Amino acid sequence: MRVRSIGEFGLIERIKKWVTPDDSSVVVGIGDDAAVVEDRPDLYRLITTDAFVEGVHFRREFATPWQIGWKAMAANLSDIAAIGGEPRWAVVSVAFSETISVEEVEELYRGMNAVSSSFGCSIVGGDTSFSPDRMLISIAVIGEVEKERLTLRRGAKIGDAICVTGELGGSEAGLQVLKEKGPTDEDVVRRHLEPRPRLREARTIGEVCRIHAMIDISDGLSSEIHHICHESRVGARLFAAKIPIWPGAREIARKMGRSPMDYALGGGEDFELLFTLCPGEVERVRSHLLNNIRTPVTVIGEIVELEKGVVLVGEDGREREMPQSGYQHFGAQRNLG
Amino acid sequence: MRVRSIGEFGLIERIKKWVTPDDSSVVVGIGDDAAVVEDRPDLYRLITTDAFVEGVHFRREFATPWQIGWKAMAANLSDIAAIGGEPRWAVVSVAFSETISVEEVEELYRGMNAVSSSFGCSIVGGDTSFSPDRMLISIAVIGEVEKERLTLRRGAKIGDAICVTGELGGSEAGLQVLKEKGPTDEDVVRRHLEPRPRLREARTIGEVCRIHAMIDISDGLSSEIHHICHESRVGARLFAAKIPIWPGAREIARKMGRSPMDYALGGGEDFELLFTLCPGEVERVRSHLLNNIRTPVTVIGEIVELEKGVVLVGEDGREREMPQSGYQHFGAQRNLG
Repeated sequence: MRVRSIGEFGLIERIKKWVTPDDSSVVVGIGDDAAVVEDRPDLYRLITTDAFVEGVHFRREFATPWQIGWKAMAANLSDIAAIGGEPRWAVVSVAFSETISVEEVEELYRGMNAVSSSFGCSIVGGDTSFSPDRMLISIAVIGEVEKERLTLRRGAKIGDAICVTGELGGSEAGLQVLKEKGPTDEDVVRRHLEPRPRLREARTIGEVCRIHAMIDISDGLSSEIHHICHESRVGARLFAAKIPIWPGAREIARKMGRSPMDYALGGGEDFELLFTLCPGEVERVRSHLLNNIRTPVTVIGEIVELEKGVVLVGEDGREREMPQSGYQHFGAQRNLG
Repeated sequence: MRVRSIGEFGLIERIKKWVTPDDSSVVVGIGDDAAVVEDRPDLYRLITTDAFVEGVHFRREFATPWQIGWKAMAANLSDIAAIGGEPRWAVVSVAFSETISVEEVEELYRGMNAVSSSFGCSIVGGDTSFSPDRMLISIAVIGEVEKERLTLRRGAKIGDAICVTGELGGSEAGLQVLKEKGPTDEDVVRRHLEPRPRLREARTIGEVCRIHAMIDISDGLSSEIHHICHESRVGARLFAAKIPIWPGAREIARKMGRSPMDYALGGGEDFELLFTLCPGEVERVRSHLLNNIRTPVTVIGEIVELEKGVVLVGEDGREREMPQSGYQHFGAQRNLG
């Protein structure tokens, strides 16, 4: 049987069975944004890793080395944000051809370091090695979270408000502009290449409410809401009219004859936070976040019973099943250009 | 300037400058076998990572997926051994073509899990993604060590005995057999493909003495002794006649018209431990290790003044400078077939 036929998520389910450890220190193993392990009485240790393959996750003709480094590190930090934690240390493995210039490697590390150090995370080690054709970057970030502040994908409750930080669709719009025009200095392109992990937002939200479930939007809203619902054993009802789409993405979608909603639902890598909480707490969270770090929070739907499935209510009021259409490695749904 | 012209070690020296963190929690950053950070009052947290690229670090025609997984994990665990610690948790990024079989991926993970779980280390997370041509494996291992048991590359003192566990040359001999015959089930080939990280040895030695400096032999003895001397700012005098070469490696070298000493000095991946300690403690360490886990320890030389350099005394009594001839990514010294 080929991996293609079971897809990335089918594979992850199997990997869980192959390596499930008999280890009481493991609070959350394979399958959430980060692993959670017991360390100190007051906090959990978090561990996350993501790999980036040239031509699959990034293209050297679209991004500067600094941007490649920034984005790879930002994606890892975003996983720590999703779980409510703070990043502390990172280790970095990079493999490249020996004809690469020292200056390019320097910019790559400076880009990684720029985003990690701005969030209090230090690059403490790593590995460099040879890769004859494609550049490879693999990062692991170790973080921590106070036990009572841990937020997982599971935990969403029926009746919860479903919220999202910021605006969606900008990253996908930026990718489309890059594909059409090549590298440019436009704001939309920076949304694709220089995402900001929502670490401060996650911590600030956690100061004033108990988040029930949270995930970062790295694979598109439609995929991420399915993850929350699957892990929480609930359904969801989202309202298309409420989904905050970045105005620049609307404009680019219009020019390209595409639906901006497709960018928001299926385009990944906006790295905004998708979370659920008691509806009564929404206003407090919204004003606290806006006042402190000027990031908007929008309610886009509600958690419903499992049997009701995951549905999107269109602007015309008609309901349709939400496709699980985000980015997925392996299988028919793989959509990166 | 190309990376090739400064070599792997020149690159690592530069990376240290680009990312040196202003972070008091970092005890040892880039440049040792693992990063060492402050965590709990009683112990340091250790973090290490290594990446493995198909065709560079392993060949799928030489090794089973189980062996590829085993060796990748063993190499990471060996870095924790080198620093005197115990591994706790691992995260794994793997990228491969979507035409790979699920069974092959399963064997890869089972190989990783076999060696990690046998040393009390749990695979707790990871990432799978697409790589169109070469398989890639990147592992990060998080471990810990009691503060007083930490052993670094630096710390060797003039007059120290230089010791090595086990026997050298087997891994390189195994690689040569693989290149000549292809995959076989011979013991020598398993020395190359299924190395055992010397975690128990490192812990057991640390029980009865204060190790001054330690490193694992992943890039060949000649390279590793240079690392210890460079970091400790000392010289070394090794005696060729005392270097324990595995008899099977001697036999294969003879058949192939090669010097077995080349296998021991330049062939990496034996994953034995190279360490220094007060000469008066050697006998206690040797008998303790032999009685408890039946691993031999051999004194192969002594630490001398920096000005005396790193020399190898031949079996004929003549001294020559020890070449820094181990495996190095990038540059003229890269020697993997």
